[in-house]
Amino acid sequence: MIPRYTPADFADLWTSDKRFKVWLDVELAACEAMERAGLVPEGVAARIRAKDLKLDADRIDTIERTVKHDVIAFLTHVEELAGEDARWLHRGMTSSDVLDSSLAILMAEAVDKLLLRTDALLAALGKRAREHAETPMIGRSHGMFAEPVTMGIVLAGHYAEMKRGRERLALARKAIAYGKIAGAVGTYAHLSPEIEREALAKLGLEPEPLATQVVPRDRHAEVFTACGLLAAAIERFATNVRHWQRSDVGEAEEAFTAGQKGSSAMPHKRNPILSENLCGLARVVRAAVTPALENIVLWHERDISHSSMERMMVPDVTTTMAFMLDRTKSLVEGLVVYPQNLQRSLDRAGDLFFSEGLLLALVEAGMARQEAYVWVQRNAMKAWRGEGTLQSNVLADSDITAKLSKERIDTCFDLHHVLRFASVMVERALAS
Amino acid sequence: MIPRYTPADFADLWTSDKRFKVWLDVELAACEAMERAGLVPEGVAARIRAKDLKLDADRIDTIERTVKHDVIAFLTHVEELAGEDARWLHRGMTSSDVLDSSLAILMAEAVDKLLLRTDALLAALGKRAREHAETPMIGRSHGMFAEPVTMGIVLAGHYAEMKRGRERLALARKAIAYGKIAGAVGTYAHLSPEIEREALAKLGLEPEPLATQVVPRDRHAEVFTACGLLAAAIERFATNVRHWQRSDVGEAEEAFTAGQKGSSAMPHKRNPILSENLCGLARVVRAAVTPALENIVLWHERDISHSSMERMMVPDVTTTMAFMLDRTKSLVEGLVVYPQNLQRSLDRAGDLFFSEGLLLALVEAGMARQEAYVWVQRNAMKAWRGEGTLQSNVLADSDITAKLSKERIDTCFDLHHVLRFASVMVERALAS
Amino acid sequence: MIPRYTPADFADLWTSDKRFKVWLDVELAACEAMERAGLVPEGVAARIRAKDLKLDADRIDTIERTVKHDVIAFLTHVEELAGEDARWLHRGMTSSDVLDSSLAILMAEAVDKLLLRTDALLAALGKRAREHAETPMIGRSHGMFAEPVTMGIVLAGHYAEMKRGRERLALARKAIAYGKIAGAVGTYAHLSPEIEREALAKLGLEPEPLATQVVPRDRHAEVFTACGLLAAAIERFATNVRHWQRSDVGEAEEAFTAGQKGSSAMPHKRNPILSENLCGLARVVRAAVTPALENIVLWHERDISHSSMERMMVPDVTTTMAFMLDRTKSLVEGLVVYPQNLQRSLDRAGDLFFSEGLLLALVEAGMARQEAYVWVQRNAMKAWRGEGTLQSNVLADSDITAKLSKERIDTCFDLHHVLRFASVMVERALAS
Amino acid sequence: MIPRYTPADFADLWTSDKRFKVWLDVELAACEAMERAGLVPEGVAARIRAKDLKLDADRIDTIERTVKHDVIAFLTHVEELAGEDARWLHRGMTSSDVLDSSLAILMAEAVDKLLLRTDALLAALGKRAREHAETPMIGRSHGMFAEPVTMGIVLAGHYAEMKRGRERLALARKAIAYGKIAGAVGTYAHLSPEIEREALAKLGLEPEPLATQVVPRDRHAEVFTACGLLAAAIERFATNVRHWQRSDVGEAEEAFTAGQKGSSAMPHKRNPILSENLCGLARVVRAAVTPALENIVLWHERDISHSSMERMMVPDVTTTMAFMLDRTKSLVEGLVVYPQNLQRSLDRAGDLFFSEGLLLALVEAGMARQEAYVWVQRNAMKAWRGEGTLQSNVLADSDITAKLSKERIDTCFDLHHVLRFASVMVERALAS
Repeated sequence: MIPRYTPADFADLWTSDKRFKVWLDVELAACEAMERAGLVPEGVAARIRAKDLKLDADRIDTIERTVKHDVIAFLTHVEELAGEDARWLHRGMTSSDVLDSSLAILMAEAVDKLLLRTDALLAALGKRAREHAETPMIGRSHGMFAEPVTMGIVLAGHYAEMKRGRERLALARKAIAYGKIAGAVGTYAHLSPEIEREALAKLGLEPEPLATQVVPRDRHAEVFTACGLLAAAIERFATNVRHWQRSDVGEAEEAFTAGQKGSSAMPHKRNPILSENLCGLARVVRAAVTPALENIVLWHERDISHSSMERMMVPDVTTTMAFMLDRTKSLVEGLVVYPQNLQRSLDRAGDLFFSEGLLLALVEAGMARQEAYVWVQRNAMKAWRGEGTLQSNVLADSDITAKLSKERIDTCFDLHHVLRFASVMVERALAS
Repeated sequence: MIPRYTPADFADLWTSDKRFKVWLDVELAACEAMERAGLVPEGVAARIRAKDLKLDADRIDTIERTVKHDVIAFLTHVEELAGEDARWLHRGMTSSDVLDSSLAILMAEAVDKLLLRTDALLAALGKRAREHAETPMIGRSHGMFAEPVTMGIVLAGHYAEMKRGRERLALARKAIAYGKIAGAVGTYAHLSPEIEREALAKLGLEPEPLATQVVPRDRHAEVFTACGLLAAAIERFATNVRHWQRSDVGEAEEAFTAGQKGSSAMPHKRNPILSENLCGLARVVRAAVTPALENIVLWHERDISHSSMERMMVPDVTTTMAFMLDRTKSLVEGLVVYPQNLQRSLDRAGDLFFSEGLLLALVEAGMARQEAYVWVQRNAMKAWRGEGTLQSNVLADSDITAKLSKERIDTCFDLHHVLRFASVMVERALAS
Repeated sequence: MIPRYTPADFADLWTSDKRFKVWLDVELAACEAMERAGLVPEGVAARIRAKDLKLDADRIDTIERTVKHDVIAFLTHVEELAGEDARWLHRGMTSSDVLDSSLAILMAEAVDKLLLRTDALLAALGKRAREHAETPMIGRSHGMFAEPVTMGIVLAGHYAEMKRGRERLALARKAIAYGKIAGAVGTYAHLSPEIEREALAKLGLEPEPLATQVVPRDRHAEVFTACGLLAAAIERFATNVRHWQRSDVGEAEEAFTAGQKGSSAMPHKRNPILSENLCGLARVVRAAVTPALENIVLWHERDISHSSMERMMVPDVTTTMAFMLDRTKSLVEGLVVYPQNLQRSLDRAGDLFFSEGLLLALVEAGMARQEAYVWVQRNAMKAWRGEGTLQSNVLADSDITAKLSKERIDTCFDLHHVLRFASVMVERALAS
Repeated sequence: MIPRYTPADFADLWTSDKRFKVWLDVELAACEAMERAGLVPEGVAARIRAKDLKLDADRIDTIERTVKHDVIAFLTHVEELAGEDARWLHRGMTSSDVLDSSLAILMAEAVDKLLLRTDALLAALGKRAREHAETPMIGRSHGMFAEPVTMGIVLAGHYAEMKRGRERLALARKAIAYGKIAGAVGTYAHLSPEIEREALAKLGLEPEPLATQVVPRDRHAEVFTACGLLAAAIERFATNVRHWQRSDVGEAEEAFTAGQKGSSAMPHKRNPILSENLCGLARVVRAAVTPALENIVLWHERDISHSSMERMMVPDVTTTMAFMLDRTKSLVEGLVVYPQNLQRSLDRAGDLFFSEGLLLALVEAGMARQEAYVWVQRNAMKAWRGEGTLQSNVLADSDITAKLSKERIDTCFDLHHVLRFASVMVERALAS
């Protein structure tokens, strides 16, 4: 989390103030459940809530420096503010009951924000995909001109992939929303499953089916893997933008804001810096997947090796992901598509991409595939060397004209025909 | 894939013979769909099927060395065996139509095998968890004696985590079962969505909603992340076994086969080598997650950078995963639990783990939590130093006996009470 | 970089203020070299230096928000403060000349700090290794009691590994101290190799032998891999501490400060939280290695995909590394070793670890190794089951006593003999 | 290691036959040293050597299936072949003495082969760099036309980076060549440092300064990080080739062998499949770095968790690296450079890349940098929109012509001038 890449709502989400507020929510929800179970006198939680405590994060930090334990420091401070009633808080609980239930609340909130952003991004992508459903562009495989596609097809492909990313994230949202109010090693020694269920329900969480001292870390890892997959989907899109914006290509480019300067030395350059930045950030998000998997392997009922990674990387990754989604959305919305340059590329590609149809026509006309291949290739290579177009060469190739009429040959070179499913494809992807 | 870690069915799955067989299945399914669409003369596929071709992987390799293209080599060889009919195969298709649909079939088959193995492992774990639902053991957090749990609770926790791993793998199974028969850049230029749907249905695959030249690689990455998560769940279990088997602990150990020799220098040692091996293999499986995420970012309609990784790591990771699941299952089944050593550890732990109950009793009796903490700690520290037990010290502490009766104090030290939810927890986890 | 894990000097190092100060240093050093080359009027740099500019990071940020370019924003602000002379700065240079030379300066400074900390850690480790050179402890392989070692040998092993880590870091320090003052694509189009050499020498940097627009990123990656290796060495040590501190073992433990509270629920527990924390931080450091390797692959003369990763991870990783080194040093210094518990473990191990010597004595006495193995094992297994010690069993085994005299048998069971090289080993490692 | 990516010498290196042969070398070298120390009767090793044992890997595997221990199986088989003398082998040693010393020998041999291949690759790169030292091409930053470079400069940059990769690999070669003949936990309980030194010297290894049961795994990790760095250097080159070969660019391409077919559907395409393959393989090599770092963290005197990873990934990574080096060398040698297309790109870039020189000329003439920037940019933007060239626009801009003479303006647009250091740069890099 560095200010440059931190949306405002994530800056708020990952503050000490917010964290301690959620800790208090958890303690009070647990306290209320214990009141109903008769383990704590009635009215304790209500009285503390009524005081509307203003927790002081700095004060808690100061206490922690002595007691070397964050939850004890927190509880000590709550007692400073709330007085005697506070002694009933945390009854029969362990630190991880508070920490892990709180982390679940915060991570679920973070993922909710990511889901909303993904929806916004998908809406933007879908809109642009429809807009360009029929805008032809040369497809490229291995970076080489292949057969034509449309800009809308390409965008719809990114839509479908990010949609799958959204589904995985939604599953991770469900997986992470599990808390625990079960005591030191999860056995409810001084609590009960009922108390836990009631307290967590109030907090919007499910009870962990079987916790150790902590909620198992495969849940957290699933959030990281879902982010890794979504970040990669963004990186693929950003990489395509970078390709399109190349000076050699110029088919589309990032919106360029007034006043922006591309380079200190090259005043005219418009660099795809948003897209490049997204590619770099994808590496950052992806980098958290492996430590998240390593965090799963805690010893016995738990150790605390996961904690430092989570302190750093849960805020980092969710925030970076939010920033990426915002940036990608505005990148999509602002993307300037240059149909004339798309056409220029099609022209540069020549008509070689129609060779496949020609090959098929020859096979249909009774030739063996490998022989037809040789006939097509010889005409293609000529065109490739700049001698005529494939179409003109073929029309002059007496072997081929002996097999195919001029009309049949001409139908092989029809752009609209090869793209006849473009809108169908776009709509199918948008409905996926 | 090295023989040492390769189950027989995975050795068969990832052979050239199997791969080419599946390629032929794909070609024939596509051919049949094209026959019905009138693009290929009726009967072609049936005639080829009737010939029951014996594909020769070596011959295909030989051809590939000249043409430098695997699918062309394959088709050339099919034509060698099937004759003229073969020229109708692959009509309007691109290599990736065959390769990616085939890869989906093979990966789905691999994941099916993994799911079956996971089920067997879960059954074994569940059985052992029930067996030891009420076998007390000392829980450990940070490696320190904490409060008691039962061996069954611990095993049920591993069950629940691996069950979640199974669910992720089942989702990945769905995600990977997408194929593509859509031509060079996925636009059905010489095909149609109907042909694709029909051909893939026969192969047990869904059509990719929007393919480029290839099926998008987030699907494959999801298989790798699911494996990474399941491998980590196994590693957590294996790490616990390693801890239990330590000479210092001795609470449980791997089955030791007759004739096995632990060490060339220490004839009596029984090392947890299966568990250690599983930890190492988890690293291998996890290592594939990042390149799988990197593979997603193909250029334009595709590049072939994903291919070499997949050639090596798809077989490696699925096979290693299968081996891990088999080995973990037999580890679970053979795990020798030593109740007397579990009791020894509980005895070593002394009665300090009852301090929490005592603290709560004092708070219930009206004390402030922090003050009660000090009273408990002073008695606990004495016991820790070997002076009496916590219970005897507390009964001799006049501050505490002034607050709590001897009967109340004794109830704080009841092992059955703190474990009263053990069976409930185990059953809940097994039902999760 | 979160406050919890940030040493004060690294908090200072990675501020905007420091960064802009170094940028100005680079611009002025380049300016002076250009003055000497006659490209810039003499005295410009000196006059700007004399003004002792107070750069305002917030002001630069404000300008950047308009111009969307950090170096242009910086130069604009310098001109605001320094006036007309500033127009001579950055002549013929590109942003990366400033950014990469500055990054080299800052990373070299960071690594220097890490090297000093490593030296302090090594001194602490060496001291403790000598202190315990002859303190016997039971060695463990696979977590099982093996043959004896000494605590000093173990610490010396960690010393040697961290020393190798230091050497790699020192090489990375050399590798990173390369700058570039060579213009837009590194060709010195409006500069010269001489100007670069002179300017960089003043800044303590070597000129990059062949830069593109940027200094190649394998240099930066080498810093990350060196950190990853050193962090792993620390993790191995921390893992050992965690093992020693286990309640089951108790051979050594982290220093426990007065007032520290181990657990909110278990007042008496002393958890190895420093060591666990180090293990978690090692994952964080290690996680940066892969993106650092990915950063190497820039397109053509450069793209900016590396930048976001570096903005986040260069400060994060170097700072975390510094924190780890500090924490490990105090962990080593404060480590409480319990010789009586070391002896308890040796006692628990029984005398089985002498079996190797006995085996050798039997072989020396003329037996085949495999047969001797059987004889030793049968006595060892009895001792393992609690029937006598190996020594007593062997003395009662008439097969063995027929081969070996009682005196010869007794010499096989001499602890001092098997540890006779302990001090030699420690000194050799400390000299490595 | 799959046949497709396995050079013949690596296929030989990583066989069971080779491994067992090296194990025997280690046992015999140790035996000879023990003979000289009087621990083993003289002549044992010589007699076994004289028998020139034909070890049977299958037989060893069979034995291992019973004894579950590879080294015991090996020794049992040696005794089958060599008879009574064999009982003297392995005296006082532990399996890891053999395994780790052997692994060091094999990895050192592997790295030697990689170093030779790197040298061959560097020679090829250097040759091509000199050949094209003065061949102008347009430099690209952010994928956008920047200022000119030469093809030789670019190749020399790759040379310098791979040379650094070679140096790191040479250091890793030194780091890995450490063995251990020190017994169960490395204390020489039944051996001595002298015996170890003598035996290892014969095998070309240094003695590990302080081993546990095993040689510490940071040494092996260093080989993996060195490979990761070198693979990334190759990936950067391969990525550039992919860019150059794009249909949009066409500046250079991979050699295309006669008979090769680019695509089953597009007969004329020439895809950069070697380069794409190299990018994918780089991911495979990089993927091993993290598990190699994880392997370092063994418990106490060792556990065996590193072993499975090493069995799979040491052969995989070194072999893949060798294949990559071979392929990159032939890629470099066969790379077809198209000067006319390089010129076409320069033409497409127009003369905008001369703007920097113009900007400097205006500043030299007394203008403030930011003002000059505005003047240049307005002319650049016109040229960018296709209205004139920068040069013609500037000559028609009366603001500028009032500041600069036509002659001064013309010198700003001289390609040879901006590339005047090209050969110097190439030679400097080749000497680095």
